[in-house]
Amino acid sequence: MDDKRFADGLEKLKEIDGKAGETVISNLQEIAPDLARYVIEFPFGDIYSRPGLDLKSREIATVAALTAMGNAQPQLKVHINGALNVGCSKQEIVEVIIQMSVYAGFPAALNGMTAAKEVFAERS
Amino acid sequence: MDDKRFADGLEKLKEIDGKAGETVISNLQEIAPDLARYVIEFPFGDIYSRPGLDLKSREIATVAALTAMGNAQPQLKVHINGALNVGCSKQEIVEVIIQMSVYAGFPAALNGMTAAKEVFAERS
Amino acid sequence: MDDKRFADGLEKLKEIDGKAGETVISNLQEIAPDLARYVIEFPFGDIYSRPGLDLKSREIATVAALTAMGNAQPQLKVHINGALNVGCSKQEIVEVIIQMSVYAGFPAALNGMTAAKEVFAERS
Amino acid sequence: MDDKRFADGLEKLKEIDGKAGETVISNLQEIAPDLARYVIEFPFGDIYSRPGLDLKSREIATVAALTAMGNAQPQLKVHINGALNVGCSKQEIVEVIIQMSVYAGFPAALNGMTAAKEVFAERS
Amino acid sequence: MDDKRFADGLEKLKEIDGKAGETVISNLQEIAPDLARYVIEFPFGDIYSRPGLDLKSREIATVAALTAMGNAQPQLKVHINGALNVGCSKQEIVEVIIQMSVYAGFPAALNGMTAAKEVFAERS
Amino acid sequence: MDDKRFADGLEKLKEIDGKAGETVISNLQEIAPDLARYVIEFPFGDIYSRPGLDLKSREIATVAALTAMGNAQPQLKVHINGALNVGCSKQEIVEVIIQMSVYAGFPAALNGMTAAKEVFAERS
Repeated sequence: MDDKRFADGLEKLKEIDGKAGETVISNLQEIAPDLARYVIEFPFGDIYSRPGLDLKSREIATVAALTAMGNAQPQLKVHINGALNVGCSKQEIVEVIIQMSVYAGFPAALNGMTAAKEVFAERS
Repeated sequence: MDDKRFADGLEKLKEIDGKAGETVISNLQEIAPDLARYVIEFPFGDIYSRPGLDLKSREIATVAALTAMGNAQPQLKVHINGALNVGCSKQEIVEVIIQMSVYAGFPAALNGMTAAKEVFAERS
Repeated sequence: MDDKRFADGLEKLKEIDGKAGETVISNLQEIAPDLARYVIEFPFGDIYSRPGLDLKSREIATVAALTAMGNAQPQLKVHINGALNVGCSKQEIVEVIIQMSVYAGFPAALNGMTAAKEVFAERS
Repeated sequence: MDDKRFADGLEKLKEIDGKAGETVISNLQEIAPDLARYVIEFPFGDIYSRPGLDLKSREIATVAALTAMGNAQPQLKVHINGALNVGCSKQEIVEVIIQMSVYAGFPAALNGMTAAKEVFAERS
Repeated sequence: MDDKRFADGLEKLKEIDGKAGETVISNLQEIAPDLARYVIEFPFGDIYSRPGLDLKSREIATVAALTAMGNAQPQLKVHINGALNVGCSKQEIVEVIIQMSVYAGFPAALNGMTAAKEVFAERS
Repeated sequence: MDDKRFADGLEKLKEIDGKAGETVISNLQEIAPDLARYVIEFPFGDIYSRPGLDLKSREIATVAALTAMGNAQPQLKVHINGALNVGCSKQEIVEVIIQMSVYAGFPAALNGMTAAKEVFAERS
């Protein structure tokens, strides 16, 4: 059974962004508790728990992808927080977002920077 | 004038994927030589040459973004090559692509893995 | 002339989500009344009025697509309402949105669920 | 452990498109066998095995989403096959794809129809 | 009835890219003749026939959008042809595509330029 | 050095939408002043300053692309303003946005029209 995946995922999610994890679970509690469970089990229990890529690089990849996709602002903010929590500097995050201007265009980079600005302000 | 940006960009592009750089320049020679110049100046001369994020992390960010966007297979292959050239292991690239299943869905990850498979085969 | 397409479309739109139909028409009244007319004629007069696929399946397809695209939250809410109006259960809608985590990633599914939560709350 | 998820997923995948399942597993065998395992466990073991939405509706949702996203042609072909295998008629699939012209534009619908045409020809 | 929309659309489509129009109709003949009819009626009969924006500007808008979206290469080629047919110069098309590097990133611009290169070669 | 690119870009940006230019620079001042500099240098200093396509056509291309992409509402508003500032009529902008229903679907056109409505109201 999946108790181990769930427990591993919850621990990993706490390491990355514990408060966001609680918010997601609580938001989905009534409408789709299984989706909350999947969020913990698959992304965090299966993927982020894998060896082969350090957690800091994983968060760089996620911040890059969400900035480039440009349609997932709440999740981008979670992972900017997560990146900071696992050891990325603000400067590194800013660099990743600037770099997305090359691959997804300037609007994606500008809107990603707005998310970073909000996260940095909330943490200061 | 921009001689320095162009020279810096060309050097950086050679460090990342020299052959791909030559191909891009040669493909655009007749139709849009200025676009080739911009590719060298802005992404490579301005962005990849910046301090604040190491080149390996930059390539992880790019492989993540292009896998997630799912509509830039030729450029994804260039940057899988680039990632290997600047020190990423095959395993790290595979991990980044697997992780994109979480953010952009399984089709994006599967099609990204096809690109990686082709690049790995071409290099072996 | 297109009187029949318009009348058919208006009737179909009322069956799916009458209030949203009125809102779209009224919002576009001054700036682009022709776009309001096209919305009624083509999607609802031409497409949703076609035989060959029942209306419930059509709304499942639309909720899936808009959740996956992730950049049309107002229209997703209209069609979650529409799906309920033509016979989908809340559970079926929740299942469609959860399933999109596979094809468009978890952020798309989470943001789609936020839309569903708002619609369900507005109707209760 | 996940033996049950894997076994459930494999059975469900066989019900939807057994040959495609084998191809995915075999294609990923050397480069990323874990991604093949995840494809079976999460989409098919966790999601498609859920009650609350019949398999035919699930395939309609997937064909809609992949047509609308427009960047996952191989997976769209798998699920057009899957839709036929679980009871959708060709006409229903054609209707879903036509409908995507409304939400993702005519190019998405036209390119989706090309995929359907290829699948229908391969099966005849 | 829609005879006038169809006739107007067919005439407009011939003005823009007659050969592509015939190909679309012929490709859809067996699988979805109604989609072919819609392609002629709505985009060309309704939209391109509208006053308020000259045909050359309409084609600039379409080439820009399809380059930026990056997932509709066949349709992009049709409209690069169309742009040339209604009076855009090759240089103007090249400029539109270069400009998309700003809004959708360099890969979109590079892949759009590949489409332009193919169209220019086919016409020479 | 790039003084000329920056000066050219700033002048061009003022011609298109001076207030938006100031806002972007000021918003990025603390978090990423270099991104503000790049926005001025590359899009406006390099691209919009090029000959070969008039400024009005450039803004039509940008409004089309941002409407179709559907994930850059703040930048779309800047360029609807810009289009008006360089000589597009409101009607021409409305036509470009309506036309995007064909290529990116009705939700993209409807959300683009919302942006236009807000800009037109702010200017009146």
